Amino acid sequence: VSEPVHNALNVVVIGKQAMNWFDAMQKAYPSVRFGTPDTWSDPLTVQAAVVSEPNALSLRPYENLQFVQSLWMGVDALVADPTLPANVRIARMVDPDMPISMAETVAAYVLWSHRFGDVFQRNQRDQIWQEIAQPLARRRTVGLLGLGTLGSQCARVLIQLGFQVVGWSRTAKPLSGVQVFDDLHAMLDVSEIVVNMLPLTEQTRGLLCARTFSAMQPGAVLINVGRGAHVIDNDLLEALDSNHLRHAVLDVFNVEPLPTVHRFWTHPSVTVTPHVAADSSQETCMPVVIENLRRFAEGLPLNNLVDRTRGY
Amino acid sequence: VSEPVHNALNVVVIGKQAMNWFDAMQKAYPSVRFGTPDTWSDPLTVQAAVVSEPNALSLRPYENLQFVQSLWMGVDALVADPTLPANVRIARMVDPDMPISMAETVAAYVLWSHRFGDVFQRNQRDQIWQEIAQPLARRRTVGLLGLGTLGSQCARVLIQLGFQVVGWSRTAKPLSGVQVFDDLHAMLDVSEIVVNMLPLTEQTRGLLCARTFSAMQPGAVLINVGRGAHVIDNDLLEALDSNHLRHAVLDVFNVEPLPTVHRFWTHPSVTVTPHVAADSSQETCMPVVIENLRRFAEGLPLNNLVDRTRGY
Repeated sequence: VSEPVHNALNVVVIGKQAMNWFDAMQKAYPSVRFGTPDTWSDPLTVQAAVVSEPNALSLRPYENLQFVQSLWMGVDALVADPTLPANVRIARMVDPDMPISMAETVAAYVLWSHRFGDVFQRNQRDQIWQEIAQPLARRRTVGLLGLGTLGSQCARVLIQLGFQVVGWSRTAKPLSGVQVFDDLHAMLDVSEIVVNMLPLTEQTRGLLCARTFSAMQPGAVLINVGRGAHVIDNDLLEALDSNHLRHAVLDVFNVEPLPTVHRFWTHPSVTVTPHVAADSSQETCMPVVIENLRRFAEGLPLNNLVDRTRGY
Repeated sequence: VSEPVHNALNVVVIGKQAMNWFDAMQKAYPSVRFGTPDTWSDPLTVQAAVVSEPNALSLRPYENLQFVQSLWMGVDALVADPTLPANVRIARMVDPDMPISMAETVAAYVLWSHRFGDVFQRNQRDQIWQEIAQPLARRRTVGLLGLGTLGSQCARVLIQLGFQVVGWSRTAKPLSGVQVFDDLHAMLDVSEIVVNMLPLTEQTRGLLCARTFSAMQPGAVLINVGRGAHVIDNDLLEALDSNHLRHAVLDVFNVEPLPTVHRFWTHPSVTVTPHVAADSSQETCMPVVIENLRRFAEGLPLNNLVDRTRGY
């Protein structure tokens, strides 16, 4: 057992989701003093933060901050926060249930578009009864952008369902049953359904643009459960308007909540879901947070640290 | 090798789908004479029929008919045909790919409603951005009505996806990982998503009625891929209008194609698909048909015979 390095650990809790867990965190770790931005008389005594809803700038008052634990897996807003000194360590949430949750959503919309749910939904609006011959999953290729924790769990589930699965990722790791491509366009060329689960970095921002869409098969379906900023919205609308792409299922957007005036809401070839592809549950995330705070207090190596240069 | 019992086997081909296969069947079995209702000068020379689109009454002219091979799995219309003598044997299609096709559709709509796809679709119409906490599949119970060839394949896929699976069937066979109920209402009571795959018989006609819906959980979802006549349409509309049931995914209807005036088309809590939950492919069904005709010609026991008393 290590000696505590922080005898009086002060943790600021920021964000709606984090606030929901406030009492439970305090109960789970009574010797730590948790507080809200409103309750600290002296922000300089705060050494750590638990944050949800990426809160750029809101950490500025905590000049002696050493560690930020995010409740989300995506930490692009925290990494981009110019007020957060480079020496502050950031840990992202690695919720053991999160890849399972994500894979359930991805399987749902891959199967739904595989069985032409989008086409039948459009036909229902016009009261059109029209059968479509449907290939089995074993004749259908699904392309995954991103083969990390989320992508590899999705791959496993889709393979179990019988799909042909191909993938593309920055660090092309071998994955059983998945044909991994180095070349993005070569992967898109063979994929009828494309699922984006990449992290948002300077390399991947705007990746889903006109050039990418034109590399996709005519009639292909895009499922975006990565980040809104991966997509150039107008390019996607053009690809859908021209019927080059058949449908897009979008869970994430450049601006969230999706503004009422945005064409995605009413486009007949777009399904909008409110950033719910994978949610974290208190039950499984709380122990991850508490364990990391304990490690911080005891000066042990922290789990799930973000490489701030790489961006995730 | 048996002696052919029918040296000159005459087979009438009836129905749109069957007609599509006419040439291929003739090519696959050249020694048989295939014909259409129009081409037989003497219907009394016909011993067997290959039929699609259940054709009550259309078999009446073939008074010496001994065997009907259906291209569909559901044979309720043939069994109910009063002009078909009791001694005529009926075989239904058992397409090796059909349960796989059905399980893909069932998994698609179970996952879709599990992830609240129906709620998000309604919200999108009203441009409502509202998150919903989503339990994982392991916390969700799916109830299967019917545990035959189709039901058991669906059960396997749903269990693989992590769902709790319960079932109900006339002949409650044990099925690994499935809790089988004798009592229909006890099964409905624990199920959040109910999938109907029962055959249509006098016992199951109208089974999905007010009494059944009231035994289902508030907020439950119904997926009907069995037969339209299992459902009392007005009872279902009432259960949806009162929000007792959250949503219904309907692939089959009392009248098909679903009449333009039917409320199902426009009901916000109904998904209509045009009887496409499981389609048969010529590639896998043709060998089944040819094999059974060969068995008939050679006087061998026929495959997939219907018990006309039981109804399937």
